[in-house]
Amino acid sequence: MTKQFDVLVIGGGPGGYVAAIRAAQLGLTAACIEKETYADPKGEVRLGGTCLNVGCIPSKALLQSSELFDQAGHSFVMHGIALDNLKVDVGTMVRRKDNIVTQLTSGIKGLFKKNKVTLLGGHGRFVGREDDAWQVEVTGKDGVELVNAKNVIVATGSKPRHLDSVPVDNKTICDNVGALSFDGVPKRLGVIGAGVIGLELGSVWKRLGSEVTILEVLPDFLAAADPAVAKDAWKVFTQKQGLNIYLGVKITKVTTGKKGTSVEYEIGDETKTLECDKLIVSVGRVPCTDGLGVENVGVQIDERGRIAVDEHCQTNQPGIWAVGDVVRGPMLAHKGMEEGVMVAERIAGQAGHVNYDAIPWVMYTHPEIAWVGKTETQLKNEGVEFRVGLIPFLANGRALGQGDTTGFVKLLADAQTDRILGVHVIGNNASELIAEAVVAMEFGASAEDLARCCHAHPTLSEAMHEAALAIDKRALHF
Amino acid sequence: MTKQFDVLVIGGGPGGYVAAIRAAQLGLTAACIEKETYADPKGEVRLGGTCLNVGCIPSKALLQSSELFDQAGHSFVMHGIALDNLKVDVGTMVRRKDNIVTQLTSGIKGLFKKNKVTLLGGHGRFVGREDDAWQVEVTGKDGVELVNAKNVIVATGSKPRHLDSVPVDNKTICDNVGALSFDGVPKRLGVIGAGVIGLELGSVWKRLGSEVTILEVLPDFLAAADPAVAKDAWKVFTQKQGLNIYLGVKITKVTTGKKGTSVEYEIGDETKTLECDKLIVSVGRVPCTDGLGVENVGVQIDERGRIAVDEHCQTNQPGIWAVGDVVRGPMLAHKGMEEGVMVAERIAGQAGHVNYDAIPWVMYTHPEIAWVGKTETQLKNEGVEFRVGLIPFLANGRALGQGDTTGFVKLLADAQTDRILGVHVIGNNASELIAEAVVAMEFGASAEDLARCCHAHPTLSEAMHEAALAIDKRALHF
Repeated sequence: MTKQFDVLVIGGGPGGYVAAIRAAQLGLTAACIEKETYADPKGEVRLGGTCLNVGCIPSKALLQSSELFDQAGHSFVMHGIALDNLKVDVGTMVRRKDNIVTQLTSGIKGLFKKNKVTLLGGHGRFVGREDDAWQVEVTGKDGVELVNAKNVIVATGSKPRHLDSVPVDNKTICDNVGALSFDGVPKRLGVIGAGVIGLELGSVWKRLGSEVTILEVLPDFLAAADPAVAKDAWKVFTQKQGLNIYLGVKITKVTTGKKGTSVEYEIGDETKTLECDKLIVSVGRVPCTDGLGVENVGVQIDERGRIAVDEHCQTNQPGIWAVGDVVRGPMLAHKGMEEGVMVAERIAGQAGHVNYDAIPWVMYTHPEIAWVGKTETQLKNEGVEFRVGLIPFLANGRALGQGDTTGFVKLLADAQTDRILGVHVIGNNASELIAEAVVAMEFGASAEDLARCCHAHPTLSEAMHEAALAIDKRALHF
Repeated sequence: MTKQFDVLVIGGGPGGYVAAIRAAQLGLTAACIEKETYADPKGEVRLGGTCLNVGCIPSKALLQSSELFDQAGHSFVMHGIALDNLKVDVGTMVRRKDNIVTQLTSGIKGLFKKNKVTLLGGHGRFVGREDDAWQVEVTGKDGVELVNAKNVIVATGSKPRHLDSVPVDNKTICDNVGALSFDGVPKRLGVIGAGVIGLELGSVWKRLGSEVTILEVLPDFLAAADPAVAKDAWKVFTQKQGLNIYLGVKITKVTTGKKGTSVEYEIGDETKTLECDKLIVSVGRVPCTDGLGVENVGVQIDERGRIAVDEHCQTNQPGIWAVGDVVRGPMLAHKGMEEGVMVAERIAGQAGHVNYDAIPWVMYTHPEIAWVGKTETQLKNEGVEFRVGLIPFLANGRALGQGDTTGFVKLLADAQTDRILGVHVIGNNASELIAEAVVAMEFGASAEDLARCCHAHPTLSEAMHEAALAIDKRALHF
C-alpha cells in the first residue's frame, strides 16, 4: 500500500530534518527521506546531512582541537605555562570528531521519534501525481516503495564542486569529506580554493604542523566579506599564521604519483608547480538534484542548476517546495533551517517567513569572521550613504585578558536614518558576537539603539557597543 | 587661582572616567579627580578604579591563564594532545596580568587627552559652595588646590568589606587586592565568602593546584542567581571541580601563626577549624565616602552608607550627582558606566537614562554565569505568571565541538504577553551570549521575536534560540 503523509521531505540535512520536525509539531503527518549512511559503522542511514556529517560540525570539532594544540605551542608561554614534548595523535583527534558526529546524528533520530516524524531510508525520486498528492518513489536497501504526499519539500542540499582536471579520490586528493579524516598530519598540504572550507581546513592542518599552500582562482581574497575584514584576515592568515595563499592563479595540470601530487598553475606570467602530500579541492558547492525526477513533475530548475523558488520557497508546482542549499541564497545550514521552518508553517496555514537580510555568515577560522547585512562594497555600489564605526579589539579589556586582540567590530549605519545596515566582526568569538547584531537588525535598530544597550564589562561584546557609539563619533574607549 | 570646570568628577573608575569623557564630548569642560596609585611603579595616579586595577580586568587575566593551564592538564587528552611536565610560573602569569592593567590604565589617560579631560591627582573633598558652583578641595602630592564646578559627579566607588575579627594584611589574609598577586600557588587556600569574587579567585587558584575551601555565611548558594543556575553551578563547582564550599557557617575566630592561618567556624552544631596558607576575605563591598566631605554640602547618605540618589543619579543637592558603586543598585562596572553617561548627558541638557531592568550580571567562573532581568524566584514572589524555556548545552553542536557541554540557557517569558522577563545562562561564553538577550529585552522582545531571529550554526547562541522556541514547546533540537 502506498504510504500517505501530509508532508514528505526529501533530504535529512538541516533544512530537511527541521522542516519535518516543525511540520510534525504543527499536527501534520511528516516523513523524511534520507539515503546517506556516511561513515556509519553499521551502514545505517544518518540524518544531519553534509553539515553534521562532513561539514560544519566535524570541521568545528577539528578546529577546536587544533586550536588548543596551537595555543599550547604558541600562546602558553606568555601565560607562564611551560610544558615539554607537545604532540598530537591525529587518530584520537579524528575519533573525538567522529564521536561527536555520531552523537548528534543519533540525536536527530531521537528528535524524529519524539516529534513523530517517520524516517524513510533510501533515495527519493518524484514519479508523478496521484489524485491530489505528489508521488515519490523511495529506493532503499529493502526495496522500492511509493509514498504520496500533498506537500513535498525538497531539501537535497549540495555537493562539492569538482574540477574535471582534478580527480578526487578522498585519499590523496580530497574534498571536504576526505579532508576531515586524514590519518596523520601531511607534511605539505595543497588547497585549491580560498573560500570558507579551504581556509577552515587549511587552518586545521596548518596548526597541526602542515606547510599549507592555498591556490585561489579569483583575484580578490574573501570577496564576499567586507573589504576591511578581508584585508585584516589576509594579513593575519598570511603574515601571522604563515598560510601561503596565492590569488588569481589558473590551475593547469594536476598529477598524482607515488610521492604525492603536483599542481601546475599559472600566476601572472609565471608557471609554477606546487608539490604536496595531500590536496584539498574546495572550489565551491553545487546544488544536488541527481536522480530527483523533477522532470516527472515539471519542477523548474534555474540557470545555475538550483530548484527555482519564490521568496517563500514555493516551486512552480503547488505543494512542491524546496529549501536550503538546493535553492537560491547562501549555502548556510541556518538559512536552510529557517526556510524549513517557514515552509512547514506555510503548509500549516501560518505566515512563516525568512528575513534574508538578517542571516549571519560565519567562518570558523581563527580569528573567526562573522557578518550580517551589507558590506561597505555593497552599500557603495547601491549608492547608499552610510557612516562607519570601527573598534579594534586592541582597545578591549576582555580581548587583552584573553591574550588575543586580533581583529575588530565594524558597524555600518545609514547616514540619514542611523539604521544599522551591516555588522562585520573579525576576532575571537565573532560567531557568537554576531547574534546580538542579528537581533538588533531584526528589530530595525539604529546604531543609537545599540549604543543605548548596556553591555557587560569586561566582554568582547563591548566592542560592538563601542562600534555603535563610534558611528556618532562618541566611542568612550577608543 | 581656583580652577573652574563645568563638570568635576570625583573618582576615576569606570563610572567616573566615562562620565568625564562623555561630558567633554558634549562640549563641557571636565576634570576628574583620582588619588589611587595602586601598584604603579612610578607612584603615578592610575585611572580605571578597582575594576581595572584590582578587580574585573586583572581577575579575568588570571582566570584566562589558569583556565588554559587547567585545560592543558585535564581536557587535552580527549583531543589527542599529549604533553609532559606541565608547569606554571606564577610570576610570569602575574606579570602578564600587571602588563594588561598598565596598558589599559595608560589607555584611559590617553582617552582623557584625546577628549580633553583634565586629570587632577589627589583626594577630592567637598568644602562648600561659592557663587553658583560647588567647591572641592583636591589634596595631591604637590599640595592642595580648590576647584569650582557647577556640577560635581561623585564616583568614589566601593571598597572591600572587612571583618573585625579577620585582619587583612594582603600578605597572608587578603582581600581582592592581595589575592590577585600571590607569589606562588598556596597549598591550602581558604576563602570567606562564596560570592562572585570568592568564586572567581577561588577558581583561579584551584585550577593552579590549590586545595580550596570556601566558607559562606548565607545558607543559600548564589542566592541572587536563578535557582536552576545556582543548583547547576553548585554541582559543577563542588562535584566536578572539587571546590569545598560550606554554607551557613559562622566564623568564630581567625588566628595567624608561622604555619599559616586557622579559621575556626561553626557549621550546624559543629565547630571546625580550617587550616590554610592563604586566606581570601571576599564578603562584599561597601560604598566609599571616606573624607568626601558630604557633610559640608549637605548631601544625603542612605541607610546603607551610600549616597542617596534618584533614578537619574541626582542627589538631594542640585548639581551634585553620584554614580556607580557608591549609589544604590548592583556594584557592576558597566552599570556605573551607563550612569556616568546618563549624568553627563543630563548635565548637557539631554535626556540620558539607564534602563535598570536590562543590566546584565556576569560571573567569570568556568562555566561562566550571566543573566539579565528577573529570576524565577523573583517572578514567583511578584506573582507573575511565566513560561520557561530551558535548553542544555548538551544539545548544542558547538558546545560538543568545543568539548564543554556544561550548563544551559533558561528563558523566562510572561505567560500572557510572551514578553521576555529574564534570561539566565550558565556555560562557556555566557558573558558574551547574554548580550543578545539584553538587546532583545531593551526592545521589549517576546520569546517569539527571539525565536524568529536567525542564529548562526553551529554556535552556542543557538541554545538561546532554542530556549526561545522552548517557551512555546517547539524547540527543534531538544
